[in-house]
Amino acid sequence: MRKIGIPEIEDIALGAALLGAGGGGDPYVGKLIAMGAVQEHGPVTLLDPEEVPDDALIVPIAMMGAPTVLCEKGIGGEEYKVLYETVSAFFGKPIYAFMPIEAGGVNSMLPIAAAARLGLPMVDCDGMGRAFPELQMVTFTIGGGSATPMALVDEKGNSCIFRTVTNQWTEELARAVTMSCGGSVSVSLYPMEGKFMKEYGVKNIVTRSEMLGASIRKVKESTDKTPEEAFLESAEAFKLFKGKISDVERDVRNGFNFGKVVLDGIGDDKGKSAYVEFQNENLTAVVDDDILATTPDLICLVDTETFIPVPTDALKYGKRVLVVGLKCFPLWRTKEGLELVGPRYFGVDTDYIPLEERCKGGC
Amino acid sequence: MRKIGIPEIEDIALGAALLGAGGGGDPYVGKLIAMGAVQEHGPVTLLDPEEVPDDALIVPIAMMGAPTVLCEKGIGGEEYKVLYETVSAFFGKPIYAFMPIEAGGVNSMLPIAAAARLGLPMVDCDGMGRAFPELQMVTFTIGGGSATPMALVDEKGNSCIFRTVTNQWTEELARAVTMSCGGSVSVSLYPMEGKFMKEYGVKNIVTRSEMLGASIRKVKESTDKTPEEAFLESAEAFKLFKGKISDVERDVRNGFNFGKVVLDGIGDDKGKSAYVEFQNENLTAVVDDDILATTPDLICLVDTETFIPVPTDALKYGKRVLVVGLKCFPLWRTKEGLELVGPRYFGVDTDYIPLEERCKGGC
Repeated sequence: MRKIGIPEIEDIALGAALLGAGGGGDPYVGKLIAMGAVQEHGPVTLLDPEEVPDDALIVPIAMMGAPTVLCEKGIGGEEYKVLYETVSAFFGKPIYAFMPIEAGGVNSMLPIAAAARLGLPMVDCDGMGRAFPELQMVTFTIGGGSATPMALVDEKGNSCIFRTVTNQWTEELARAVTMSCGGSVSVSLYPMEGKFMKEYGVKNIVTRSEMLGASIRKVKESTDKTPEEAFLESAEAFKLFKGKISDVERDVRNGFNFGKVVLDGIGDDKGKSAYVEFQNENLTAVVDDDILATTPDLICLVDTETFIPVPTDALKYGKRVLVVGLKCFPLWRTKEGLELVGPRYFGVDTDYIPLEERCKGGC
Repeated sequence: MRKIGIPEIEDIALGAALLGAGGGGDPYVGKLIAMGAVQEHGPVTLLDPEEVPDDALIVPIAMMGAPTVLCEKGIGGEEYKVLYETVSAFFGKPIYAFMPIEAGGVNSMLPIAAAARLGLPMVDCDGMGRAFPELQMVTFTIGGGSATPMALVDEKGNSCIFRTVTNQWTEELARAVTMSCGGSVSVSLYPMEGKFMKEYGVKNIVTRSEMLGASIRKVKESTDKTPEEAFLESAEAFKLFKGKISDVERDVRNGFNFGKVVLDGIGDDKGKSAYVEFQNENLTAVVDDDILATTPDLICLVDTETFIPVPTDALKYGKRVLVVGLKCFPLWRTKEGLELVGPRYFGVDTDYIPLEERCKGGC
């Protein structure tokens, strides 16, 4: 148990941008929302998962819809109170703590705001260890968890709570309401007991995010390593490629951002060529026709000077980036995990081979 | 308190077709659903409103969406159980009885099915005394009642419960979910306490509907009156016009059926001309440029021989119909009532004058 205030939020947001693996929405607006709540109500208690009783009601908090709409429409002060009341009433017992469902991107920040406003603790755990584009893509699905009862509130005070027969119906109905409410709403989903959270969740991911953020912030402080060495070491990242963006293709289909960024090698990679394909998040990194990494391992592009993560919507011609790979949460590497988020699910015709094996010969 | 079984359902359905005032959806499918439930679970107890305790939780049941979709998709057996559980859990107390929200059209039948399946009584009361096209058009709105918490379930088992800031938002969100669920769902709305129901509801409307149905069924049994006289007397109806349909205009806009039926006079009305305009339900009856009736009074077209009501979707060239007016529930004639359902709300540029005054000189 420890407190997270403004400085911690800064680092968590920076780390969450890396864990977004190119997607998840820019944490910036979320950071402002979290900081606003903490300034008003004081720091949030972050619980170690092992501190949570087995029968405690734990509720992940997120936003649903387009992060760009969130920038315009914002989140008022009352949404999380309505979510709290709706879900507590539904279960007939109070929520013990909130948690993030997604540690990457903007959804890393909103549970902090919710916890601050309700005076509840937040658990140091999520259901992805990164960001993913679809509702069922959480470790809790592997454990047989259901997204519903899922509660949804908008900034005007409208709310509803769903129970559905499949997570696909949850997606369908919640998406319809989200659109009617203007394209961005606050939700709670995958409500669960402490025991289940401890068994299937990605534990201590908020702390990991904070450490990643701190290491990016302090990357130039090292005296015995280059900033790049310091970054790779502290992030436990595999260097995949260093290049200059020569082309970006984008295609918005079915509510997803599909695309491909092409890179010309610089530095050690001069003369080589690489590309990264994405569907919201980065899916594959290919260098001179060799696949070096695929989902569910994290493929992240960072600025070559500042090491600040570059999300897919900020990819620009001429920008110099370092492409790195981070190992995903072990549960994603199981048969069940790969069925949910492996390369073939995303239409990439290759078997999943762990990042560290693909890079064995040196990336 | 009395029981309603198959024969009562037959008559209520026939009366509900008349109270539909041209709209409300054909009660036929609803009748089959209600009869199926009663055959399986036995007759339903119909409570007089005065038998309901002040603090009892009373929940109106209806279908939302297109009645034509209901014909294809039907209603399974489980929807009302899910509605019951969802609403009882929300309020933390069991539902005491169901009731219709709308006595006209298909929604007259579904609360009977719900009551039979759950073994609950149904209250002899509704919120319109007829059919109306929009969610807020209930007497309970005049009393300050809210449509929410509104629960919604589909035949697959998906469910949700809404709370909204205005009834307009209820319409918006519930409509979005209804469409995603395939265009027809079962709902409960305007949940209320017994006291409020007794104060603002249209009491004994189910019994009235049954009597109307019975009188249409027995219209030819009278020995001292013509069938038409018998029908007009038992229905307390004002004869407005008798004619042959010479034209029907229809226009589907924003989910409503707009239109106009033009009639050439027959019998006593030979040489005259009339038209009836509708938005789902009939709005105005005009004979030789004189307005003889407007909403919220009920304007009903019935077959000249059988006196079976003719809904707007069954209007056909050459059909002979009797146009009659029925007085609406007194609360609709107040200032608040006319704001909700008066002619000007529907874009008809005339003041409301009660049917019996317009017909004083003889219709």
